[in-house]
Amino acid sequence: MSIDTAAAQTAIVPTLPGDVVVFVGTPDAVPLAEATLSVSDLATTRGDGVFESIAVIGGVFVQLEAHLERLDHSAAMLDLPAPDLAAFEAAARLAVAAHAAEPELLVKLVHSRGPEGGVNGQVAPSGWAQVMSGPDHSAARTAGIRVVTLDRGYRHDVAQTSPWLLQGAKTLSYALNKAALREAARRGADDVIFVSSDGVVLEGPTSTVLVRHGGVFRTPRTDLGILAGTTQALVFDTLASLGFDTAEAVIPPEELAAADAVWLLSSGRLVAPVRELDGRSIPVDAALTSTLLAETFGLR
Amino acid sequence: MSIDTAAAQTAIVPTLPGDVVVFVGTPDAVPLAEATLSVSDLATTRGDGVFESIAVIGGVFVQLEAHLERLDHSAAMLDLPAPDLAAFEAAARLAVAAHAAEPELLVKLVHSRGPEGGVNGQVAPSGWAQVMSGPDHSAARTAGIRVVTLDRGYRHDVAQTSPWLLQGAKTLSYALNKAALREAARRGADDVIFVSSDGVVLEGPTSTVLVRHGGVFRTPRTDLGILAGTTQALVFDTLASLGFDTAEAVIPPEELAAADAVWLLSSGRLVAPVRELDGRSIPVDAALTSTLLAETFGLR
Repeated sequence: MSIDTAAAQTAIVPTLPGDVVVFVGTPDAVPLAEATLSVSDLATTRGDGVFESIAVIGGVFVQLEAHLERLDHSAAMLDLPAPDLAAFEAAARLAVAAHAAEPELLVKLVHSRGPEGGVNGQVAPSGWAQVMSGPDHSAARTAGIRVVTLDRGYRHDVAQTSPWLLQGAKTLSYALNKAALREAARRGADDVIFVSSDGVVLEGPTSTVLVRHGGVFRTPRTDLGILAGTTQALVFDTLASLGFDTAEAVIPPEELAAADAVWLLSSGRLVAPVRELDGRSIPVDAALTSTLLAETFGLR
Repeated sequence: MSIDTAAAQTAIVPTLPGDVVVFVGTPDAVPLAEATLSVSDLATTRGDGVFESIAVIGGVFVQLEAHLERLDHSAAMLDLPAPDLAAFEAAARLAVAAHAAEPELLVKLVHSRGPEGGVNGQVAPSGWAQVMSGPDHSAARTAGIRVVTLDRGYRHDVAQTSPWLLQGAKTLSYALNKAALREAARRGADDVIFVSSDGVVLEGPTSTVLVRHGGVFRTPRTDLGILAGTTQALVFDTLASLGFDTAEAVIPPEELAAADAVWLLSSGRLVAPVRELDGRSIPVDAALTSTLLAETFGLR
């Protein structure tokens, strides 16, 4: 990347109140209330774009490069023009610099196909970075979360057989993920683990699954049409440094219920132990959760 | 509905150039270029809303009430606040009145969950009507279209087993439908007919399937997790008035290839005969297509 990240990071930028938005390729941060988009943008009318959510902890981006690479990968899966990653990075850094400092911030990057019909007949993608205060995740990280398993409807192999279903791309078409979370709430739960129609554990609507059996930690394989988890990659590094075995695997749902512990990993909540699965309690490993948060993210 | 539709239809409104937008609940039509939405609207960031596309032929709305009812139905499936249908109708009529008159116009209604986090903690849906000139569909209507069948990935019964998949709701999360159309283009085709993972004909990404065998015309049953076609309902009325039998059915893909004729029905293109299916020619019934366009929509 060509951007001088050190300069971008240390520039003096006036702090704005609330959420901050920087449109890619523009030099200014604006308050969220002033950040608008055409109603005809294909992000809005077709969910036709891709995004990333990136944690900023103590002012430091977590896995920025991995998130930019995944944005690029998702864009390619949607035949979108390649995002200008250096410009996205610059927008993200400027937006964080203009946001009031907080222990944990979340940056959303959005890259859409732009206005319907393009500009002068050419696809003219829209892109921006939005920085927001994260909600307080401490209860989820310590007490744990209640999770239900829900049918994702697809076989485990649709990413190979039917790539137009876009499984494995992080698209803006998230209505289904939101509906699944509402279904979880109806069942008295906080979150969801999707299972394929042929009985393979996939992922959460906004998270990666981590399962422990003894000294072995497994996560579903990314060829199952799921996202490669950026938080999961970091947590695997920590687990390896602690002497544990880690693996990508095909995991049947029965192994969730029989696990020594299950976590959902994501950029905002980071590491959330599952304390209840489909209404039944499962063990929470509070000590290891603390260790993972401390060793991986410096959170104590 | 409480709105005085006659008054709204006949009011003198200045004509705007190009596409016209009216936000629901506002009294003014604005040019598309001035119609903007917060980047944090859940339509934009999550495809979390519903829509309808409605034809206006010779200044007359086609099936406006059926489209408003379907908008309401889709909204309920997404647990959205119920759209104010009278206000949507008023917005649609005002937008059409402010658009330059054309033989065929298309009106898009959008109803989203609104800005993330709501307004003062309450969900505050966004809604608007956009009026645009339709593209020229005459070639598709006369010469016909080339169609490929693509796997939709879901079983035929997921609408019953897994309602959180939102099959049968017309959501803004359409990235998959756009990807399927790009796959069709890669295969040298114009459009797609989706087939369930267990071998049942479903629908097109933006259309309803109509299949003829002799004097019997069939369309896939709406309990297969597909949209109830508004154009299909009108065309069935015309077919019945012409003395044909019509039915909703479970149709295996082999019956498409063996049909006397196949059409895709939708609000913009209206009635498009399929001339090629998965690379093989199938008969085009040009005379009946003309009759359906004339008798159903007054298009000659």
